[in-house]
Amino acid sequence: MVDVDPLVERVRRGETGAIARLITQIERRSDGVTDRIAALHREAGVGHVVGVTGPAGSGKSTLVSALTSAARRRGRTVGVLAVDPSSLYSGGAILGDRIRMSDQAGDPGVYIRSVATRGALGGLSRAVLDAITVLSAAGKDLIVLETVGVGQAEVDVVSAAQTVAVVSVPGMGDEVQAIKAGLLEIADVHVLNKADRDGAQKAYAELKDMLRLGGLVGGDGWDVPVLKTVAGEGTGVEDLLDTFDAHLGHMERSGERERRARRNNATRIRWMAEEMVLDRLRDGRPDFDHEVEAVTALRTDPLHAARRLLGEHPDLRAADAMGAR
Amino acid sequence: MVDVDPLVERVRRGETGAIARLITQIERRSDGVTDRIAALHREAGVGHVVGVTGPAGSGKSTLVSALTSAARRRGRTVGVLAVDPSSLYSGGAILGDRIRMSDQAGDPGVYIRSVATRGALGGLSRAVLDAITVLSAAGKDLIVLETVGVGQAEVDVVSAAQTVAVVSVPGMGDEVQAIKAGLLEIADVHVLNKADRDGAQKAYAELKDMLRLGGLVGGDGWDVPVLKTVAGEGTGVEDLLDTFDAHLGHMERSGERERRARRNNATRIRWMAEEMVLDRLRDGRPDFDHEVEAVTALRTDPLHAARRLLGEHPDLRAADAMGAR
Repeated sequence: MVDVDPLVERVRRGETGAIARLITQIERRSDGVTDRIAALHREAGVGHVVGVTGPAGSGKSTLVSALTSAARRRGRTVGVLAVDPSSLYSGGAILGDRIRMSDQAGDPGVYIRSVATRGALGGLSRAVLDAITVLSAAGKDLIVLETVGVGQAEVDVVSAAQTVAVVSVPGMGDEVQAIKAGLLEIADVHVLNKADRDGAQKAYAELKDMLRLGGLVGGDGWDVPVLKTVAGEGTGVEDLLDTFDAHLGHMERSGERERRARRNNATRIRWMAEEMVLDRLRDGRPDFDHEVEAVTALRTDPLHAARRLLGEHPDLRAADAMGAR
Repeated sequence: MVDVDPLVERVRRGETGAIARLITQIERRSDGVTDRIAALHREAGVGHVVGVTGPAGSGKSTLVSALTSAARRRGRTVGVLAVDPSSLYSGGAILGDRIRMSDQAGDPGVYIRSVATRGALGGLSRAVLDAITVLSAAGKDLIVLETVGVGQAEVDVVSAAQTVAVVSVPGMGDEVQAIKAGLLEIADVHVLNKADRDGAQKAYAELKDMLRLGGLVGGDGWDVPVLKTVAGEGTGVEDLLDTFDAHLGHMERSGERERRARRNNATRIRWMAEEMVLDRLRDGRPDFDHEVEAVTALRTDPLHAARRLLGEHPDLRAADAMGAR
């Protein structure tokens, strides 16, 4: 059935309605969604995943909007996922401040939505990885993960993205310390947005100093650059796109792109396996109920029951001897 | 090896030092502890597990101490686990207020310690269930689970115990409402401690009313009794022990004791299975690494990789067709 799933086919053709429906299914963990994501996996290795993070007020949304327009002018298709760790289910609602992205409204080459990740186990959200698979299989060339709010989202973005841009603005004062503490080391690119403001040159120099002090210049062959933008006017955005391209090339040459893909795939295989095992071990499954009975009757113990249920064959002689006093 | 494990043998003989060492291994999840608990399972269906819970200040510790002395006078051995959900690792330290249990110090028929349960997945703590297995296999006739602090611990105790005693004291005012809200329904026995205080008769009448209003009298054949104690003087403690015995008999006749054992065993089998699966799916395991490579190279997807790793055989034709555009 999977190979003729109409929703999967429509996602493959890049239909916006189908993408939206499937991502909603991902958030809700609807029946059949696991098979649909699996069916899309082999076509999903293509898009360049860029994370955009930084403190509130740094103008991330405006920057993402400007990046989207610039990428479209280069003929690239774009998907934007606003990763919101504070909400359990987004309902697919586009955030209030997305109104300014109305430039892209109606453009079938752009897909924008928020993804709720609250309640996701582990740091890296399964919903985020699955939504990336969908957008990539739908043919999006650039996939932007924008963090909304604070918290664990930055970590999610780093794990899932090939390139991470950390955005700051001049005059944040102590905010710069926040960047220094948490976000400095995850940046592949630093963006000093609103660079026409007073204090831009000072903030630029400070960022450069921090990078030098942090040993983040010239380490693994990638000098973390600091780019100045005025996102509201589109200034510096073309340069930023060029820098993303350069970083992707670097990631591919260094093998880091594949290393990250491998790590994320390992995580996903574990999620799938856990889900399957818990499904086999539901009340009412005859094998499982049989083992529960045997453990309760003290004919065996939970460890050996679990081994049998997973198809492992313990040394039966030892298992028998074990129970003897 | 398991059947000649010296630590397991010493626990079977009820040696206090061995019990302590094994419970510390449980908290630390040390290597080999899973096999040791499994080896003890078949001898662990004997002890009567009694949960003692209630608000701070209700005199739980004093009551448990008095119960321990009374049970010893009847020739029964006793294990006390102070379940502390707020700490990650108890270090086996006996809590400060345990000093008053010095009556029992040096008595090999009594074992007392705290068990840290913080960080345990799910409501029911694995450490608590495993520690009960150890005490039961060590021959303890009465195993008291005393909750320390607040929170999820009450739920743990209800799941693991055959009999739950909820302790309150006269004059708690709003505290009675707290009992009403959360603890009323989990009690198999209500204990009004410090019953020589002013207001005892009023509190007793209130508790009785609440039980009647809650429909907790004469339902499944067990009328939830309210017993008055003055634990510091030992008053009412013999009656309480008799009531515990009566309730255990009721649980056995009604089949509820077995139902709870079955549910706890189901949980434990799932824990074991999950642990085994995660062990099979570690980086560096050749099968797992092979599947991660295949998923990363887009030759397969995480779902089918997980199925193969768990020994399931998907429809290969469908899996192949799936990847085709």
